[in-house]
This record gives sequence, structure tokens and C-alpha cells, in this order.
Amino acid sequence: MSEKEEILSLLQDVQAGKVKPEDALLRLKEEPYEDIGYAKVDFHRELRQGVPEVIYGLSKTKEQIEGILHAMEKRDLKNILVTRIDPDKADYLSARFPLRFDALSGLAVAYPAEVEHHGSVVVATGGTSDIGVAEEAAITAETLGSRVTRLYDVGVAGLHRLMHNLDPLMSARVVIAVAGMEGALASVIGGLVDCPVIAVPTSVGYGASFGGLSALLSMLNSCASGVSVVNIDNGFGAGFLANRINQMRSAED
Amino acid sequence: MSEKEEILSLLQDVQAGKVKPEDALLRLKEEPYEDIGYAKVDFHRELRQGVPEVIYGLSKTKEQIEGILHAMEKRDLKNILVTRIDPDKADYLSARFPLRFDALSGLAVAYPAEVEHHGSVVVATGGTSDIGVAEEAAITAETLGSRVTRLYDVGVAGLHRLMHNLDPLMSARVVIAVAGMEGALASVIGGLVDCPVIAVPTSVGYGASFGGLSALLSMLNSCASGVSVVNIDNGFGAGFLANRINQMRSAED
Amino acid sequence: MSEKEEILSLLQDVQAGKVKPEDALLRLKEEPYEDIGYAKVDFHRELRQGVPEVIYGLSKTKEQIEGILHAMEKRDLKNILVTRIDPDKADYLSARFPLRFDALSGLAVAYPAEVEHHGSVVVATGGTSDIGVAEEAAITAETLGSRVTRLYDVGVAGLHRLMHNLDPLMSARVVIAVAGMEGALASVIGGLVDCPVIAVPTSVGYGASFGGLSALLSMLNSCASGVSVVNIDNGFGAGFLANRINQMRSAED
Amino acid sequence: MSEKEEILSLLQDVQAGKVKPEDALLRLKEEPYEDIGYAKVDFHRELRQGVPEVIYGLSKTKEQIEGILHAMEKRDLKNILVTRIDPDKADYLSARFPLRFDALSGLAVAYPAEVEHHGSVVVATGGTSDIGVAEEAAITAETLGSRVTRLYDVGVAGLHRLMHNLDPLMSARVVIAVAGMEGALASVIGGLVDCPVIAVPTSVGYGASFGGLSALLSMLNSCASGVSVVNIDNGFGAGFLANRINQMRSAED
Amino acid sequence: MSEKEEILSLLQDVQAGKVKPEDALLRLKEEPYEDIGYAKVDFHRELRQGVPEVIYGLSKTKEQIEGILHAMEKRDLKNILVTRIDPDKADYLSARFPLRFDALSGLAVAYPAEVEHHGSVVVATGGTSDIGVAEEAAITAETLGSRVTRLYDVGVAGLHRLMHNLDPLMSARVVIAVAGMEGALASVIGGLVDCPVIAVPTSVGYGASFGGLSALLSMLNSCASGVSVVNIDNGFGAGFLANRINQMRSAED
Amino acid sequence: MSEKEEILSLLQDVQAGKVKPEDALLRLKEEPYEDIGYAKVDFHRELRQGVPEVIYGLSKTKEQIEGILHAMEKRDLKNILVTRIDPDKADYLSARFPLRFDALSGLAVAYPAEVEHHGSVVVATGGTSDIGVAEEAAITAETLGSRVTRLYDVGVAGLHRLMHNLDPLMSARVVIAVAGMEGALASVIGGLVDCPVIAVPTSVGYGASFGGLSALLSMLNSCASGVSVVNIDNGFGAGFLANRINQMRSAED
Amino acid sequence: MSEKEEILSLLQDVQAGKVKPEDALLRLKEEPYEDIGYAKVDFHRELRQGVPEVIYGLSKTKEQIEGILHAMEKRDLKNILVTRIDPDKADYLSARFPLRFDALSGLAVAYPAEVEHHGSVVVATGGTSDIGVAEEAAITAETLGSRVTRLYDVGVAGLHRLMHNLDPLMSARVVIAVAGMEGALASVIGGLVDCPVIAVPTSVGYGASFGGLSALLSMLNSCASGVSVVNIDNGFGAGFLANRINQMRSAED
Amino acid sequence: MSEKEEILSLLQDVQAGKVKPEDALLRLKEEPYEDIGYAKVDFHRELRQGVPEVIYGLSKTKEQIEGILHAMEKRDLKNILVTRIDPDKADYLSARFPLRFDALSGLAVAYPAEVEHHGSVVVATGGTSDIGVAEEAAITAETLGSRVTRLYDVGVAGLHRLMHNLDPLMSARVVIAVAGMEGALASVIGGLVDCPVIAVPTSVGYGASFGGLSALLSMLNSCASGVSVVNIDNGFGAGFLANRINQMRSAED
Repeated sequence: MSEKEEILSLLQDVQAGKVKPEDALLRLKEEPYEDIGYAKVDFHRELRQGVPEVIYGLSKTKEQIEGILHAMEKRDLKNILVTRIDPDKADYLSARFPLRFDALSGLAVAYPAEVEHHGSVVVATGGTSDIGVAEEAAITAETLGSRVTRLYDVGVAGLHRLMHNLDPLMSARVVIAVAGMEGALASVIGGLVDCPVIAVPTSVGYGASFGGLSALLSMLNSCASGVSVVNIDNGFGAGFLANRINQMRSAED
Repeated sequence: MSEKEEILSLLQDVQAGKVKPEDALLRLKEEPYEDIGYAKVDFHRELRQGVPEVIYGLSKTKEQIEGILHAMEKRDLKNILVTRIDPDKADYLSARFPLRFDALSGLAVAYPAEVEHHGSVVVATGGTSDIGVAEEAAITAETLGSRVTRLYDVGVAGLHRLMHNLDPLMSARVVIAVAGMEGALASVIGGLVDCPVIAVPTSVGYGASFGGLSALLSMLNSCASGVSVVNIDNGFGAGFLANRINQMRSAED
Repeated sequence: MSEKEEILSLLQDVQAGKVKPEDALLRLKEEPYEDIGYAKVDFHRELRQGVPEVIYGLSKTKEQIEGILHAMEKRDLKNILVTRIDPDKADYLSARFPLRFDALSGLAVAYPAEVEHHGSVVVATGGTSDIGVAEEAAITAETLGSRVTRLYDVGVAGLHRLMHNLDPLMSARVVIAVAGMEGALASVIGGLVDCPVIAVPTSVGYGASFGGLSALLSMLNSCASGVSVVNIDNGFGAGFLANRINQMRSAED
Repeated sequence: MSEKEEILSLLQDVQAGKVKPEDALLRLKEEPYEDIGYAKVDFHRELRQGVPEVIYGLSKTKEQIEGILHAMEKRDLKNILVTRIDPDKADYLSARFPLRFDALSGLAVAYPAEVEHHGSVVVATGGTSDIGVAEEAAITAETLGSRVTRLYDVGVAGLHRLMHNLDPLMSARVVIAVAGMEGALASVIGGLVDCPVIAVPTSVGYGASFGGLSALLSMLNSCASGVSVVNIDNGFGAGFLANRINQMRSAED
Repeated sequence: MSEKEEILSLLQDVQAGKVKPEDALLRLKEEPYEDIGYAKVDFHRELRQGVPEVIYGLSKTKEQIEGILHAMEKRDLKNILVTRIDPDKADYLSARFPLRFDALSGLAVAYPAEVEHHGSVVVATGGTSDIGVAEEAAITAETLGSRVTRLYDVGVAGLHRLMHNLDPLMSARVVIAVAGMEGALASVIGGLVDCPVIAVPTSVGYGASFGGLSALLSMLNSCASGVSVVNIDNGFGAGFLANRINQMRSAED
Repeated sequence: MSEKEEILSLLQDVQAGKVKPEDALLRLKEEPYEDIGYAKVDFHRELRQGVPEVIYGLSKTKEQIEGILHAMEKRDLKNILVTRIDPDKADYLSARFPLRFDALSGLAVAYPAEVEHHGSVVVATGGTSDIGVAEEAAITAETLGSRVTRLYDVGVAGLHRLMHNLDPLMSARVVIAVAGMEGALASVIGGLVDCPVIAVPTSVGYGASFGGLSALLSMLNSCASGVSVVNIDNGFGAGFLANRINQMRSAED
Repeated sequence: MSEKEEILSLLQDVQAGKVKPEDALLRLKEEPYEDIGYAKVDFHRELRQGVPEVIYGLSKTKEQIEGILHAMEKRDLKNILVTRIDPDKADYLSARFPLRFDALSGLAVAYPAEVEHHGSVVVATGGTSDIGVAEEAAITAETLGSRVTRLYDVGVAGLHRLMHNLDPLMSARVVIAVAGMEGALASVIGGLVDCPVIAVPTSVGYGASFGGLSALLSMLNSCASGVSVVNIDNGFGAGFLANRINQMRSAED
Repeated sequence: MSEKEEILSLLQDVQAGKVKPEDALLRLKEEPYEDIGYAKVDFHRELRQGVPEVIYGLSKTKEQIEGILHAMEKRDLKNILVTRIDPDKADYLSARFPLRFDALSGLAVAYPAEVEHHGSVVVATGGTSDIGVAEEAAITAETLGSRVTRLYDVGVAGLHRLMHNLDPLMSARVVIAVAGMEGALASVIGGLVDCPVIAVPTSVGYGASFGGLSALLSMLNSCASGVSVVNIDNGFGAGFLANRINQMRSAED
């Protein structure tokens, strides 16, 4: 039932005398989140977007994350992603919640549950150093229900490594291209495949990479069509979007 | 027939004596493009990506564009996009080719042909000044086969204008959010819908918008999931990608 | 009557059978703006913020501005601000609407009407070259009902010029400090007065002023308290905000 | 008695022989601050701006802060703000002065005293991570006499959280909008309310947030009128200015 | 008579009944400039700094410059510098005032008068393209009374050209080093001479010179001691400062 | 005869009484250039570097270029390069000197003379729009004696166009990779060949290409070894350096 | 045997029935690297470029480096460069492989072997602080077979230090100029020598050196011909390229 | 005896048979520095510039500094400045050389000796946090022979603190203005005094001060004449230059 239908139905209940105007007003303004002071935990999101709220862990204390998880567990949510936490926070949370933690990416999944994997997302990296970001993307997409193939260290300076892995690329529904330094991987892959390519610049590099700026600009200026870009090191965002595209159904018309 | 199958088939023809090794070598190296000196017109692209090559018109002379179109017309291609040309170039080309030209976006379609429109792409803008870029996106997606809904001047400073247009947004398969200045439109839409959002920063603004940098950074830092970004003013890129996502079929498994 | 009260009243009308649920739904979604295709002209804004919508003229065609003004004149709005138009556009519009145009700032007032001026806003500039931006601020504030004192060319390199004009500064309710180059005027004034200071960096300068960046950073880093900053050359924004502050009434508790 | 009146009175005393010219000269040049070598502690400021000098603690040693507080306590000042100190400095100072310390914001109030709270300032944040900066703003405004309402974690990616808190926003005299990443909160609030909005960009974020630059540019380019901006993370500046605006009385004419 | 002595004397006159308190107040506040609306023409400056005010011509209209010159001519000032005007403005002003105009630098001297030249200022440039800026510096310093030697096109890529001109460099009291592109001239000269070196970065160059940024950063980072820097293309500032240093007398102790 | 040998020989002549000390001093300081006021025309350069001085034409007037050419023609120099001149300047100079002009690159060769071409330099571009810069490089290298192969429009978005042209690349002694936008061409070529690669970023592009910054950073961060970079659009510099490398002889040990 | 010949030969074997089509396909796609999960160790590179793959150590764990070295040792490779490792990683690796480690540059050579040194590469630095980067360049070039002369602390602020070392510069085949701060060394050397100059900006400096940006821009804008630039602090890249140029043989025609 | 005279005298000695040509050559090339491997310690500098070489200590090891000091002590140099060393290095050096160390600025003076102080240099700071940089300037100037007056914490936000200290400013021969944040101090002082002002931006501040960039740009854009700028935090450079200017004697003509 869409929001419009809900409102219409509510108004009909008011007209029918089943609901008092004051109560209707209340429901129209009811908070679809729980306010725990330092956070307003969003439950509407799962309804709205089909995915429970994700907890961005970097600048939250472990106690804050704990509080948000407590608010969420009351709703019986599963596979809650907690991004960018260090082993300390992971240990603290593991002692209190069922938690699966990947140290390389700093990504945790609270109340992990089995999900079926569908379609095909390829996560490719330019180098070994990009793997942390790539795993954040890969685990996110897997947790949300996508089948993921990893293709690591296939940077353009040794093009044959990419060329010998064309099969998974060519059959992918979405490709995530993760690269630092000059970020050329996104353009080269974008020129080869006919599916959407999500480019993730990484902060890998030194000097004139300026913390990922070089790869970011490269990817934004990609001469290949079908490439879009997320924030530097934003593996989660890429994985989330890749899953959303991968799970698309055929248009009805 | 995939490239792998083609090679295997070619090798079998060699083994069967139908094709000489020297000829096979030639075909393996055959150029899937026409070299006209200042350009290598790519015909392989339609096979590879299902869309004829697009001519980026901004820094090409009208004679160069004419030459490329001549090379393409020999292959009987339709709906060839020529981006960022001014009325002068459009006039010159119109006298030589069937051409549909949109002055607002500077986008032309050579050898225009009817296409069926499927699915649903919404193109939204923050203001009136963003419409040129938005039309580049909308016409591109339409030409490639997408059904497009335009939602212009719904910037976040008058949120009720967006709120009263939730229906097309909520039923979209892809949304393109086009905005200059602070670029907040992408985040607000990204928080409302459950489909992929392609954000296009525009160079609309002055002062600290620094030619679109402000909107670009805003969109890259979007706190909403499901948002990715293309280059400043890159309406074509957004329309191309939106069509690609919109046309996706259900995964088979 | 607040929005909450309106909704409650509407619901009571539904309950009383005075309004059908379908009509109530319609009214809840009624568009408080007029959609003229390339723009959604906002009338709700005057209710919401007490000021009619302002037309940002820079990147609109004269026909677009004309269309928006036609939509607004039907509502009998007065003192409609049209910012950043050149004499050509001003001539075109003057032939069609009552219009007062200031060439220095490029600011026009359509359907000008007398307003009473209250309180005290001082607009100060560092140099002669900043006067265009300053007039945009001053005329905006005056049109909205503020009494404005101009204090031009009082930059800090000749501090005595500022010192000999302390009286209007000291009795101001709001000061707008407009300066390019090193933008020190905002800090010096900010250290002298006890009212809010709105700093407007201008693009006046050359070389390492980088189009106003120098003044912008200076003003953001002001060591004086009570100073806030608007965009480079944004005289309108400063005048609008200054008027809003100047018109404040005493808090009731 | 204004400074002008003071000078006139002094001159009349000289004429009347009550004050010798030499003494008058001295008083005209008398230092309204105490010079303690590494600092010139400003007492004139309270007269000039109605608020005692604030001690910016970040780059001062605890001994320097102590020295400045000693100079101030001789004047019997109350509610002296000391910003950006860490728990170590706070402990050191607590042992020597009456001190109220907020660890989240690093803000201390020396010689705390009860104040009455007037008017209405709302401090809103985009996320949980912005609360430190928000508290610096909130405590500053409260200490200076403003009534403050906190509205935390209402970022635009979950717009319903903001929409369900419209009441305090709509009745605010000043709103402080604190946000990192894309900083869209300021524009959305600016479009809703009819009071001054002070935008505080925060350094919360990563990658292309470039230490708060993204939010800063966003806020400067806000398409909503009535918004001005302070430095990145400058909660104190926002709270100080908000209080100044909130405490404004009606203009007399 | 110093300002302090003036005030004391004034106060003694008040005590002696020679001056009324109200008149003394007036004189204490008397404006040492003429206010012509768009400008406050500073006459105090010649007293304060020994040089008449300079008119920055770039963003002033020819009528504004004319007005300021009229205000100045009443005081019988000579050798008034008007910087950065184009031939049009120069023609307009020449018809109204005695004016010497240098087209290369855009610098004019109104009411030119003979001055004696003292000391020794060397103005060196890296290339031919830097001469416009260099002449602004050279003519400024000459007009203010310095003897100037020009040393043009001695950039470091052909070091022997500099080495064969060491004599004037070695006997200079001040050197102005004008260079664009990589700006190395300032460091090389700074390492050779034992007098102050004023570095002027120019906007000469292309690509990664970013409008003079490259030369500016180079000069700020000069590994040679005794080098300081002015704004990009600021020949006037360099010439003014060079003259000030060149004209210094021996310290008395 | 090396410079050291020259000095020794000169000193021996002094000892032998053939040369007077005063004359020797003079010769040691003799100027190896002609000073024509606005330029010091360098003749030493041909001795020093084997190539006559190049005239950077962009910011010189046609009369200045003429003057420099007159100074050079007296020495009977051939193949003098004049870079970045427009057709107007070219016409003016053609009427006065034997001149070969390439309109696409703006490069002229005065006193053109036949040269033999040796070795192998490949100039490759990403797109058609980069050809102007590429021709500057190619003609420079050819004029200085290199054999040049042009490989235009082989950008990485259509990798097969590059792959079908591997032969000239693989047999090159030096490759110049000219590309704008994301500049990935340099990395891809750098990973394929085993000769030095000179990368030339171009200002081709829009939006986040920021005038060539994107390509510049990309190329500097190239993950391929053997790549070095020159300034944005610096075709001349690349061609000059490529020729220098191409003409290298085997080391003797 | 070139790749083209290899393919032809393979096809002839297929025709002759010696190889089955399926096996030929396999060999055409055979991986010329070893995939160890987190890295694809490239052995093709030595064939392709004559130098074994280099391990960029900075962002790899010691275990990852160990794994890559194990993969390489199976191929009996010598003189494998491992860049940017700290003493901890060096100790760990030394216990497992023959390893020569230079602490100043952080460069290690695994399986070190004697090589003959040819030609002449000069590595010059502006100051003492640049020596770490310079040693990375020097050891790289030596390990690959170049004879290297070090010329340290010859910055342009004391030009005589450079002038007294002209002999090695003048006889070099390649010069590497390593400098931070204003980076003028590259231009000065570039103007003196007639061989290729590779400029390496370093991050040495503070303030407006912005982590090496100042030196980088300087070097890119060098007014001397024959200079190209690598990334900030990229000693390895400079040494690799210098060796490649130094080892060049005479062109055959 | 000037260098020219020295060469002439040497040549006369050759002619007279007193010196052999080979020995003369040697002396002409004699190294006026000591090469200790990692540094070329410059003794010529004292002759050339009247001041012994300064040791930039930040990126040198204590052993390197020790080595350079040992090389210098052999020449019996006094008052050798060692900048930017930490207490550890200072302790190490103190145990080996007579050393005076200032912890606030990190500046040490080796072999300290009494010097007479002449003239008048004022060092002013905007705030307490700028004192470290200011002391580097002040001690440098004092050590080189200038009389220095310190004027700390006189930032423009409390202008009366500056106004009550006009006497030392007005009688200064050179002023050093040290300020972070918005750096307005340099402009205000520059407008008041008639002597050269050396502006030193500091990295004091946060957020949009971007490590001193804000103050740097401010100072470069100063609307006051007579102001020049050195690198961010470069107290030493300012002190060195201030002394050089302060010690100037009257021009002879």
C-alpha cells in the first residue's frame, strides 16, 4: 500500500468515524524513527528503500553504535551493516551482538543472516593496496543479496592481466572499478563492457595523488560512457548502488 | 556469437583448411574502425555496447564532424548523437544530413529514427538554469529508448515543489538529479527513492561555486545511499547511463 | 492559522462530511506554486517567509523572466526583485512591466511600491570597486523595508576613514561589510560593533585574489566574533538577511 | 554614556580646570586591557560588545590560559568561555578555578553563573558525528542567555526526521544548522523557516569532503535566502552570533 | 609635530579658552580626506606615508578616476600614479589633465613633475613577456625618486645572460625580480646579492602555471634568504616598496 | 674545445704575451648573446645544446618576434622554431622571412631547411581534439631531425584502436602520449612499451578536467614505469625532449 | 620471436594438426602472471620491458610482500626492487630472502646480484633533505645497470656550488634533478646541459610548499627545454626512466 | 677587492709569471665550500652576503647538523643559526657546542657571541599563538644585529590594543607583522606606518584557514602599499630580511 493509499484510507476511516481527527493527525505526524538523543534511528528506511539503515561507524563511539544497535534489534532487523570500525570497536560489539567482522575493510555485519545471491557484480581493483576498499564494496553487495566476483590487481600498467580476465567482466551486470593513483582502470573497463560501471577512486598513492584527488578527477573525466563515480574510498556506497542496479527487474513496458 | 566463440570458430576454419593462417592473422588484427586521419571512427562499439559511437562536438570543427558522419552513414547507422554543437555547426550539418537539433542543450541527432520508449527515467533539476544540461540527459535517454519524465525547478529551497511531485519520482526506475550551486537535490532525492540516482553537478552559479566544484563535491559526499556522480554539466553521460540501467532485464538467477 | 491547525481543521471538515476524503487528499497535495514548464513559480514563499520569490536573472533569458513575472503579476505581488540583469534585459522588461533598474548592481524591482523603512542597516565597502555589490545589498534591504546607511571606500589601509565614521556603525542594528582583496574590513568592523556583521567577499582584485577566494577565506577566518559570511559577490543574500535581522522584534520571553 | 559623550565630558572637565591636559591625554590613551606579555587581555570588550573576552584554548598552553584567567578574575568576570581544550587542560584549570567542562565539545565555562534564558535558538545537526560542534554552539548560546533547543541527526537523507520536527524550527528566532559531508541541511532548513539561519560546516566526512570544504562550499552556495556561514567546525562563532541575533530588541522606528 | 603633540596642544588650547570643547571635539573627528560619494580621497596619506594616494584604475570608470583627480588637483599634488588603465581611459584623462602614460604597463602619471633619482634599484625579468609588469615597477620607483636599472630577459634557462650582468646586480640597493612560469629568477638572484630582493610573480605562462600560482609558490618557497614576495603581477607594489627601502637613511644608532 | 680548455688556452695566451690581461678579462665576460632591449637573443645555446633558441610567440608582439628573428638571421641560423603564433602574426612574419606555418598547432619554422630524419618517435593522441598539441610535438621533433609516426584518436575507451596499432608503438624509440580528460593513455602505453614515454596532458575537456589538471595529475600518478610528464599543452617541450632522447647514441662504456 | 610471429606460428601448428583449436585458444588466453589472490605477479613484464616487476611496498603488509617474493623466486629472478619499506619490514624480509636494504630511501633489493654499470647518470639534489629521494633514484638506476654520479646539496641559492661541479653535469647522458621548496634546480640544470633532465619534486619544505606542490608546479613550468617531471618524491620512477634513457643505443637509421 | 678585481689581479700575476696558467685555472675553479658528502657547507656566503650560512634543522638528523657545525667551527664562525630543531636535537648539540636554544621557536644559536643592536625592528603578532613564529623572527634579527621591539597579541579584532601601541610602530624602521587566521594585521599596520612591512602568515587557525593559506592570500592581496610577504611560518626569513633592511645605510647619491 503506497503512502497515498495509506493517507486516503486513513481519511476514509476518519469519515467513517472509525478514527478521530485528533488521532489521525497524530498518525500523520507519527515518527517513523526512534529518537535516542544523539541519533534518530530510521526504521522507515527499510520500508522506503528495502534495506535497513546502515551505521557509519568512523566517528561514532562504540557506545553510540551499541545504542543504535539496541534500538534496531528491537525491530528484529537482520544483516545490519556497520562500516569503518576498528578491531577495538568490533571486539566491544562482538561481545554484545552477533557480529561478523572483516578486518581488511573494517566492515561489520550485525545479526548476520543467510541471504541468497543473485545476478553478477564484478569488483575489480587496480592494485593490491585497493583491496580494503574493494572488500567493503564486495561484502556490502553480497550481504544485500548480490553474487560477487573479485578481480584484484588488474591495473592498466599490465594490461594483459585485465585482458586475460575478460570473461567475468563481459558477463557482469554491474562492474565496480576500484583504483587509486591515476584511476585509469575505470575508463579501460568502461570501454570494454556494456553494463553500468561504478568507479571508486581510492586514496592509495602519494605525492600528486593528493589523497585520491587524482583518481577522482580521472574517473569523473572518463572518456568511456556508462561510468559514474562515488566518493574517494567509498566502497560501501559502490556496493550498495551496485546491488540496487544488479537486482533490477525488467521494465514492464 | 561472443568474441571467444568467434576466435574458436576462426581457428576451426583454419584447421579445416577453409581459412589460411595468414588470413586468420589478418582477421584477428582487422581494424574494427575506419581511420580517417584525424579520427578512428569506431564501428565495433555498436556491437560491443549496443549503441553507435557518439560524436563529442565541442572541440571538433564542423568539417571534422561532417567527415565522421560520412564515415558512419556508409554503415547505415541511425540516431547518431552529436553533442555540444552550436547553431552554426548545426546549420552546416543540417544542410548535409538529416538532423534533429535541440538549441537549449546543443545536442543533435543525425539520421533520427523512431524508437520505442520503455521503463521510466525521471530527469529533475534544481532550477531553471539547469535545464540545458537536463535536456542533454533527457534527449539522450529518449533517443536510446527510454521513457523520460521531466521535473524541472524543484530545488530544495522550496521543498514543497519537490514534495508535490513525489509520484513520478517514486515510480521511476532511475532518477537523474541535475543541480548547480549547492547540489543538495541529489541527496534529498536519494533519501526518498529506492532506485539508482545519477547526480549531475552543473556549472550554474557564481563566486564560491567555482564552476560547478561546489555541486560536484556536495554530490560526491551525499549522505544518501544509491547516488553516483558524473562530470560537471555531463548531461549526455547521465542520460546514457540512465538508459543503460533503465533497460536492464531481470537477472536470470 | 498554522499548518498543523489547517490540517486538523481539514480533517474535522472531513469528519463533519463537509469535505469528501478525495477532495481532502487533493487539497493536501495542492500545488502552492504555478508550473510554467521551465519554472515552478513559488507563491507559498510569501506566506512562508513574508517575502515574494526573488528572480535570479543571470542565467535566465529575458523571455523566461517575463514569463515568471506574468505568473507573479496575476497574484498582485509588489516589489519583486530581479537580480543580475544587464541593461538589455532591463530595457526589455521595462517595456512590459513597471520596473525600477539600478545599472551599477544590475538589480531591478518590478512593480515597485513605496515601503516604510525601519531600523538601521549600514552597508560599508572597502573600496570604490565594491560598490556594485554593495548597492545590490543596499537596495535589497531598502526594498524589503530597512533603513540603510551607505559607508563606501573605508578600507583598512586608510583606517582613519573608517574611524571618522564610527557613529553610524555604532548605532547600526546590522552591518554589511563588503570587501575584496584581503577582506580585512569585516574583521575590523566586527571588532568594533556589537551587532551582527554580515561579510560579503567580492571578486574585486587580481592575481592571488583568485576571483574572491582570498577575501572569502579571510572573512571565514575572522578573529572577530559576530561575523558570518555569504557567497562571493552575493549582495542580494546579504541584504535579504540583514533586513531579516534588522526587522526582528524583541523576544517575548 | 557613549564614547563621544565621554570624550566631550572629558574635554569639558579640562576646560573647567578639573582635569589637567596631561592627565586628559593619558586617559585618552589609557590601555583598556591588561598586558601580560604573551597576551593583552581585553576588558574593553565587555563594555564594547557586552560579552567578556573568550579564550581560544587550542593553541595556548594551560599555563597561558591560567594566566589569562587570573587577569580576568581580578575584574570579577563571570561565565568566561574557554574553547577547544582537552580533558588535561580542563583538569589543570578545574583545580585552580571554578569550571564547568563539556568533554564532547571541549568547551569550558570558568566562573560559571546562572543566567536567564530568553528567546529561542534551535541547533540542528545532520548526523550524530556533528554533535561535538553543535554542543559548542549550544552551550555558548545558553551561557550568553539564549534558550536553546537541540535537534540532532535530522540530515536530509531521511527527510521525514526533519519533517517531524518542524514545530521547534518554525517557532525559532534563529536556527544553527550544523552539518558535514554535503551540508545540504542548511539549504533545506533555509527554505522552510523565516528566521536567520547560521550554517556551520563540519569536518565530518572523508575523501572528497576535504576536511569540511565540501560542506563549506555547499553552504556558501545555498539557494535558500537568509543563510550565512561561519568557519568549518566553528560552533562557538555560530552560538555567539545566534545569541546576538536572538537577543535583539524591536527597532524603535 | 606628532599626532600626540597635536592632541596635547589642542587640549592646552581648550584649557586656555582659545578653543571651545565642541570645536575641539570636531577637530579630533575632522575628516582627513574628501568624501566624493563613491570614494574617500585620502590626503592624510601623503602626511602619513610621504606619498600621495595612488589610484587603482582597473575597476574604476574613467569618470570616477576623473572625479578623484579633480579632488586631488585642488591640493596641488604632483606625480599622482594611476595604475592599470587602458589607452581609452588614458586618452580621456589626457584631454583633462597633464598626464604621462606608458602603454606597456598601463601606468599613468598625472601632473608629472621632475624628481631627482637616488640610490639604485635593479628591475630584472625572466623573459620578454614580463616587461609590462616590470615597467609598472620601474616607473613607479622612478616617479617616487629612485634611480632604476632595467635588466630584461635574463631568465635562468640561459644563466650566462644573468652572469654577464652581475655588475648592476651587485651594486644594487634593492632588486626587483619579475618572473612568470617557474619563477626561479628570484632564488638565483637572492643567492647572489646581499640586498633585499622583492619577487614579483607574473601570470605569464600557460597550463600548470595556473595564472601565476606556480611562480608565486616558487618565490614564497625560495631557498634564498632576503627574498619577499608581492601579489601576482603587482609591479606597482614592488616599485613602491623598492623605493621605500632604497630611500632609507642610516639608522642613527 | 670545452669551456675549460678555452679558458686554459686563453690563460696560456696571456702568459705568452699574446693577449693582454685587460683583453682576457673582457673575453671572459664577453656576452654570448645579442641584447636588443626587450630580449637577450641567445646564440650560445646552439653551441651549448645543439639547437638554436626557440621563440615562444604567445605573449610577444609580432614586432618583437620580427626583431628577434632579425638578430638571429645575421648568424645564418636555420629551422628556427616560433611557437604559439596566430595566423595574423604568421602572415606578418611570412611577408618578411621564409616561413613554414602549421595553423593547427600555431607552430612556425623560420628559414626552413631540409633535415634528415632518424630513429623513431611515435606521437599518439587520445582523441581528435588533442591533435593541435600533438602536431606541435610532431613538427618540433621532425624539424630537429627525428622520424615521426602519428597515431591519432587511439584513446583507451576504445582499446581495440590502440591494440590494432601496436606495431609502430613496439618499435618506437620514444613515444609521446598526448591526452586530455582522464589522461589514461599514458599509463596504458607505458605498460606496453619498453622505451621512454613522454606524457603531454592537454586542456581538452570540460567541468572537472579543470583546464587539464585532471590529465596532468593522472599522468604524474601513472602506475606504469618509464613515463614522465611535461606541462599541460606543451607539445613543443615533448617534441624537443623526444628528439633529444631519440638522437642518443650508444654509451661508450 | 615477436608476439605476431608467435601467433602466426601457433596458427600454423593448428593448420598442421599439431595443436588442437581448443588448446590454441587456451594458449592465446594463457595467463602470463601468477595469481596469488591479493596480487597478480607479472612475469611477462621482464619479457616485455626487460626489467622484473617492482614491488611497491608502502601499502602492502610484510606478509603480502613475502608472498609476492616467493612467487618471483620460483622464476629465479634477480635484483628485485622493493620500494618504500620501513626497517621493520626490511628485517622481516631479510630473515627470509637475500636482501640489501638502504635505510635512507627505504629501498630494498632482493636477490641482489652484481651488474655491470654503463653510461653516466648524474643525480643532483638541491639540499641535504632531498637525499632520501635521490638515493631511491640512484640505487634504482645502479641496480638496473647504470653508472651513477651523486651531486648533493647544490641548490640554486648558492649557485657557485653547482658551478664548481659542471664537469660531471656536462658529461652526463641523463641528469636527475631532485629538489623541494621552489624546485629551481631543474630549470638551472636544464639550461646548462644538453642531455635529458628528469625532474623530481620532493615534499621537503613547509608552509606554501604544500607537500611538494610548489616544486612540482615549478618543474612543470620550467623555461628550460629538455626537462620532464615525475611524481613528487618518486625517486624510483626517475631512476627507472633515467636508466632506460641511459641504456639507449644509437638508432640504426 | 671585488671579484672582478680579483680576477684581473690573478691574470696580471699570470702575465708576470708569478702564477702558472694551470694554477690560475685551479683557483678560478676553487671550491668556496667544504663538501662533507651530504652537504656542501658554504663559506663563501659570509663574504657574499655578510652572514654565515644558516642551518635549516627540520629535516636534518642531529648527526648531520653536528657534522655541518664541525665544518663551520673550523672557520671560527660565530652566531650560527640553527632553525627548527626540537629539544632532543638541542640537547644533543648543546653537549657538543656552545649553544643558546629558544624552545618556543625551536631556534638555536651556536657559538653565541655578543653583538651590538642598531636601528629598530618591531615584531607584532595578531595573537598569543603566533608567538613561536614571531620569536624566530625576533631572535634572528637580534642575533644579526638589530634592535627589536616585541608587540604581541595586537590583532585587529581588538583594534584599541594596536592603537595604544602606535609609538613603537611609528618609529620603527621595519615592521614584521605575524598573523594567522585572516591575516588582517599586515594590512592595518601597512596603512599606518611609512616603513617597509614584512608580513608572515602563520598556520595558526583551523577549518578554512587551510594551514595558513587564508592568511597568506590575505597578506598577498593587502590593499596597503609597502607590504611584502614571506612563506607561511617563515619567521627566520622575515627576521633575516628585516635586519638587512634595518641595517641599510643612506644612499650615497
